[in-house]
Amino acid sequence: MTLSYNIDCLQYANWSEKIFRQMREGGLDAVHVTIAYHENFRETVLNIERWNRWFEQYPELIFPGRTGDDVRFARESGRTAIFFGFQNPSPIEDDIGLVEIVHTLGARFMQLTYNNQSLLATGCYEEEDSGVTRMGRQVIKEMNRVGLVVDMSHSGERSTFEAIEISERPIAITHANPTFWHPALRNKSDDLLRALGQSNGMLGFSVYPHHLKNGSDCTLQSFCDMIARTADLMGIENIGIGTDLCQDQPNSVVDWMRAGRWTKEVEYGEGTSDNAGFPAMPSWYEDNRNFSNIKNGLRTAGFSDSNVAAVMGGNWLNFFDRSFMSEGSPSVSSKMDAAE
Amino acid sequence: MTLSYNIDCLQYANWSEKIFRQMREGGLDAVHVTIAYHENFRETVLNIERWNRWFEQYPELIFPGRTGDDVRFARESGRTAIFFGFQNPSPIEDDIGLVEIVHTLGARFMQLTYNNQSLLATGCYEEEDSGVTRMGRQVIKEMNRVGLVVDMSHSGERSTFEAIEISERPIAITHANPTFWHPALRNKSDDLLRALGQSNGMLGFSVYPHHLKNGSDCTLQSFCDMIARTADLMGIENIGIGTDLCQDQPNSVVDWMRAGRWTKEVEYGEGTSDNAGFPAMPSWYEDNRNFSNIKNGLRTAGFSDSNVAAVMGGNWLNFFDRSFMSEGSPSVSSKMDAAE
Repeated sequence: MTLSYNIDCLQYANWSEKIFRQMREGGLDAVHVTIAYHENFRETVLNIERWNRWFEQYPELIFPGRTGDDVRFARESGRTAIFFGFQNPSPIEDDIGLVEIVHTLGARFMQLTYNNQSLLATGCYEEEDSGVTRMGRQVIKEMNRVGLVVDMSHSGERSTFEAIEISERPIAITHANPTFWHPALRNKSDDLLRALGQSNGMLGFSVYPHHLKNGSDCTLQSFCDMIARTADLMGIENIGIGTDLCQDQPNSVVDWMRAGRWTKEVEYGEGTSDNAGFPAMPSWYEDNRNFSNIKNGLRTAGFSDSNVAAVMGGNWLNFFDRSFMSEGSPSVSSKMDAAE
Repeated sequence: MTLSYNIDCLQYANWSEKIFRQMREGGLDAVHVTIAYHENFRETVLNIERWNRWFEQYPELIFPGRTGDDVRFARESGRTAIFFGFQNPSPIEDDIGLVEIVHTLGARFMQLTYNNQSLLATGCYEEEDSGVTRMGRQVIKEMNRVGLVVDMSHSGERSTFEAIEISERPIAITHANPTFWHPALRNKSDDLLRALGQSNGMLGFSVYPHHLKNGSDCTLQSFCDMIARTADLMGIENIGIGTDLCQDQPNSVVDWMRAGRWTKEVEYGEGTSDNAGFPAMPSWYEDNRNFSNIKNGLRTAGFSDSNVAAVMGGNWLNFFDRSFMSEGSPSVSSKMDAAE
């Protein structure tokens, strides 16, 4: 039997012992957790400090993940490896030197934009997508050097095509679905997904209702059939799961995600004025304990055991293995390089 | 022949390629470098960013040191491992969570005070030494947990005795000399050094002229005889070198070290109004290339080969081995602990 791993490559829950225990019940070996939306560097460090307290309090459940091997170690020790990511480049402010600093502190994914224009690229909600900026090119190069993955989940299409082109290492869209299935602004076109697959980049399928066909009423079968079609489009080896689980969050948090400090007006994002809060999750995916439902759904949809294992975590693990170590120069993360 | 290591456990030079090359010429396997005097957290991070650029520019000369094994790796690869330290707790501000953050970023030594009262303890220039503070007790405990060494080089005597007592791991005085040899305010009493030795703490002998008998005119023989007497006092296994080399620094830097942002008046520190700048180094120790002069001086003073090796780096390496890893809970630095 193939050893298979379970990896969720995007969550932003209201973390608690309860949720960490549910990760264990669901058999999650690794979770990529969002630790910043609009936070600046110092605020992001405060969020890491909060995680450090959780690591200290619940060492039997979770530990900080840094490399692909930490996923294997999580499996061996019966715990969940937690990998940090940002949904916006706000933690690096206007300082390229912070790219290596946040990587040393554990960040492994950074979105170049969160819906809006950033210093680096254009978000998917701007009317005009002017592509990757001058600083964006420099920061992608530095992210490539240290091993911080470019994540374009919330970026505009042109910016995403350019990021795939500019980045010398494969990029990720950690949480989104194809527009052929559900034409949300946040979902991705066939052309873009094809380019992502051809560059060995990864797509994580989201279970966030606004990204789903029929929203909260989406069926597991429809979701898994969509995964099968996407595998045909971009390659079975380039897809995984990124649920975007926002469990137990109060609606004040979705306000923060959408409006940050950049507007004084109410911002509905993917919601509407009569559906402004977090939407209800589909019945087959309410928390981490349901992770195996997706696995079963894929089997029912006709995926082979090895393809199920690839989608549920094997592909992300391969991606982690080749993405998180620094390349070339001897950064803090891999000083061994220079001596080889 | 015993494999011997060369470690300088305190420098604050005006770093440059020239100095990194001199480290290699002097055979330094590891140097503990001061990266903050009065800097707050964000400023300290800027200083780490500057070091990251040097690591990127000069990978054949230096790399970031994190553990004792990095000293061995430095020897194997013909480079110098650089360990970060702070001369003041200002980088952690009033936030105990920053202790683990700075450790993750590479800090391995932190003085609880620099001459003045701090949030943690009393500096050696205050009239009244009220000992380790409430926050100081908490921070020592946290430093013990993550593997950040308590350094009391610039602290008052009562605070230092208390730090030795409170700390569950041996502490260090990285750069100072005994008062029996030269009664400077910064040098340490017999009683204190005896207590330091009995707790398996380390003393690094300073070559900074204000700490030397006869200042810049101090002879190598006098320095090495002092080391022999100190070995008798506190144990040959508890002493090493911490030169306090401030090579190529302009006098504006000694002003910053002394006055920081805490006074508007001129502060002479260990200097005087007619000797306000950096003092001239003794002729036998002007830069890293002279490290072997001390080795030769110790041999002449009658030290055995194994004792010379212990003082020149072996003792610091033992101390690094047992001091820099986190203990107990699975911090970022040693998540393996929990699984054992």
